[in-house]
Amino acid sequence: MKSSWKGLCQGFFFCLAIIMMDAVLKTENVQAKQGPDVSYFKLENGLDVVVIPDRRAPVVTHMVWYRVGAADEPPGVSGIAHFLEHLMFKGTEKYAPGEFSKIIAAQGGEDNAFTSQDVTAYFQRVAKDKLPMVMEMEADRMANLKLLEKDVVTERDVIIEERRSRIDNSPSAILSEQLGAALYQSHPYGVPVIGWMHEMEKLSRQDALDYYEKYYAPNNAILIVAGDVNPDEVRTLAEKYYGPVKRGPDLKARQRPLEPKPVAPRRVTYEDKRAGKLTWQRLYLVPSYKTAPKGDSEALELLMKVAIEGTTSRLYKKLVLEDKLASSAGGGYSPSGMEYGSLYVYAVPNKGVSIEQIETAVQEVFDDMAENGVTDQELTRAKNSYVADYIYGNDSQSGLARRYGFALASGWTIKDVESYPERLKAVKPEDLKRVANKYLDVKASVTGILKPAPQKQAEASNQ
Amino acid sequence: MKSSWKGLCQGFFFCLAIIMMDAVLKTENVQAKQGPDVSYFKLENGLDVVVIPDRRAPVVTHMVWYRVGAADEPPGVSGIAHFLEHLMFKGTEKYAPGEFSKIIAAQGGEDNAFTSQDVTAYFQRVAKDKLPMVMEMEADRMANLKLLEKDVVTERDVIIEERRSRIDNSPSAILSEQLGAALYQSHPYGVPVIGWMHEMEKLSRQDALDYYEKYYAPNNAILIVAGDVNPDEVRTLAEKYYGPVKRGPDLKARQRPLEPKPVAPRRVTYEDKRAGKLTWQRLYLVPSYKTAPKGDSEALELLMKVAIEGTTSRLYKKLVLEDKLASSAGGGYSPSGMEYGSLYVYAVPNKGVSIEQIETAVQEVFDDMAENGVTDQELTRAKNSYVADYIYGNDSQSGLARRYGFALASGWTIKDVESYPERLKAVKPEDLKRVANKYLDVKASVTGILKPAPQKQAEASNQ
Repeated sequence: MKSSWKGLCQGFFFCLAIIMMDAVLKTENVQAKQGPDVSYFKLENGLDVVVIPDRRAPVVTHMVWYRVGAADEPPGVSGIAHFLEHLMFKGTEKYAPGEFSKIIAAQGGEDNAFTSQDVTAYFQRVAKDKLPMVMEMEADRMANLKLLEKDVVTERDVIIEERRSRIDNSPSAILSEQLGAALYQSHPYGVPVIGWMHEMEKLSRQDALDYYEKYYAPNNAILIVAGDVNPDEVRTLAEKYYGPVKRGPDLKARQRPLEPKPVAPRRVTYEDKRAGKLTWQRLYLVPSYKTAPKGDSEALELLMKVAIEGTTSRLYKKLVLEDKLASSAGGGYSPSGMEYGSLYVYAVPNKGVSIEQIETAVQEVFDDMAENGVTDQELTRAKNSYVADYIYGNDSQSGLARRYGFALASGWTIKDVESYPERLKAVKPEDLKRVANKYLDVKASVTGILKPAPQKQAEASNQ
Repeated sequence: MKSSWKGLCQGFFFCLAIIMMDAVLKTENVQAKQGPDVSYFKLENGLDVVVIPDRRAPVVTHMVWYRVGAADEPPGVSGIAHFLEHLMFKGTEKYAPGEFSKIIAAQGGEDNAFTSQDVTAYFQRVAKDKLPMVMEMEADRMANLKLLEKDVVTERDVIIEERRSRIDNSPSAILSEQLGAALYQSHPYGVPVIGWMHEMEKLSRQDALDYYEKYYAPNNAILIVAGDVNPDEVRTLAEKYYGPVKRGPDLKARQRPLEPKPVAPRRVTYEDKRAGKLTWQRLYLVPSYKTAPKGDSEALELLMKVAIEGTTSRLYKKLVLEDKLASSAGGGYSPSGMEYGSLYVYAVPNKGVSIEQIETAVQEVFDDMAENGVTDQELTRAKNSYVADYIYGNDSQSGLARRYGFALASGWTIKDVESYPERLKAVKPEDLKRVANKYLDVKASVTGILKPAPQKQAEASNQ
């Protein structure tokens, strides 16, 4: 994506800055090549609005995406992005704590929210005639969040409990967190979205307000409305409800510290008596869709489909079916980060099989890809599978809304989203061979071993 | 140290804040227990001044220490602390680039500077009658640094070359950097002082000026004058030369993100055809003198003396002399960090000896310490060695000045420095056993393997 933009912009002095500040604008009136007839406009206060018509039922999905995530947190304040997401349900002058979700539920709707490293999103699914209601409520908490100290303290206990149950009670989640910290030497993707416990315990009302005031504003948000609507009625409603919300501060382009060149493979061993089985896994640091040279991400996606994804992959065939080294094996490519993506591969060794045997076998699968590439048939099957997923995805209203919201809030354009099937189809077998050689580099990897601890030892270490 | 302060402060509401803001003041008029008769005063603009009389020769050591180091750098701007240290020799309105050092040298003096994770220091050693001259020059560049773009660009090439020669040309330095990055999951001690190359390449004049204007000011500095002087004459000179320098901004207490609880040992393998020999090493994350519970740092220091420091250590005896597993082995405790210290242990395996054998043998040495402690004789020998070093250290004028400067700039007090021998003497054999059990925890460690790469493979990986 980067390189195609460069192509468009040669000779313009402020080109890069403009792209970074307002990439979405440039895609106005781009015709959708696949799927729904998506339209885009921007309110005067900077709010980007995307409308995705879906007339099959009288329901709408309403989402607000903020261009901020855990990777934008100040050092030492990990977890604040996710904590604020929770606190957004604590009400305003107009709505009491918890009332937001109750009102939606009382109308037969659903609502939820989530925080990732790059984005934070709030969404509701309601009957079409309730769209004005949710817009009014969402616009209200964009500007008028009311945080009482006691609510903040109570909710902090909630996120701490969430960390305990999701991470600290799960040996594999603990190891994943450790692997992330080891994979990223400098970039904040190494910090868990939920936060490090010792920092979560100190998160304050002021931390949340600072974050809210800086990042929660129409000029840092994207409104997605999917469903039984047309662009004009959404524009009228958006202007009515979101239009009066004041702009927030002008934010600098999002910049996170980048990784030094990886030079040495890392390895993390986590022992826990709660771990069920010895498990081997590896993460490779690779570019994301947003940062990869043209075509590399698409090729990586297809390569991983052939190599390690699912039970038809070469990895599964070799490790599980043929060599009988593992009871399961798999992995995939996570392409969505603003700065980096990662490749993930894992295997659960059969009894008596060593970690070394697993690593050798995985390396053989990868080396074969790098040396001999993949067959035309494999590539075609992988392409068909992804393109089918993409097209089937067009049938899901909330899935579509998420697809556009996530992409736009991470700095993609509507065109980037819609040209995905075409870009995928353009990948050639030699591209897979090329990216296998380029990115399957053990120096850019971290390997994790999850080890069931002997009962006695584990008890000693828990004292 | 922390706990002794707590003892003094019980019941005072702002106690902790006061300690953090102005710990040095509290030691005014404390009588030195060992060594020279050190005195302390503060100028009105906030400059702390320490005078260490040493009448043996008509020379003085003049040092200015800033309470800022690489661990205070903003994320993504690594290397700026060290870069600014270089740029401080680029002159002012009064002195041309490079003139500072030339003038000192022309007077038969020496000057230098250094940057660590916690402090930055500038020092000169000159004949006594040149003290006014160096004070005038050092005070001048504290306030009036002049940075021309061309000098900044040239000097950036110098630090980049410094990184190339010191780090990138040295396989063991590369591995050390990787081990630091793996040991610290959150704290900036994981970022190298010299900076990551990709960030150094972007350091700008403005980055340097921002850092300079924020941190280089009398209220963030400590002046140490050691040598043929008395406190009154130093006060007169300091008031004359440093007195007119304006205060800088009031800085918040230095706060860096702390580490999550370590749960999983890490391992980094670095292969390089330039590496001479297979080498094994391990770092443990432990508290520093500043952060350890009372007595723990002193006990760790003595424990490491018995266990791993030098050729009389148990490690050396076992691995090199008795079991003949290694051609050399050693290590030690680095206690000086503001937030963390580290234990370091290494061994160079003999031909045919595996890494596993080395690790087992090292663990046996440590397990024995944890289970059986050390003998009275070993402890006495270790204490005598440290106390002797401390007392001999009193004979070195520049060593003394460094001892006080480093300690004070890292947030210690003069009393902390001077009570060191007493605190060390108070350690009991059971303390060593206790800290061996408490801190020699492999979960808090990173292990590094430096591997000579086969010629062919190394060439391939360098392409």
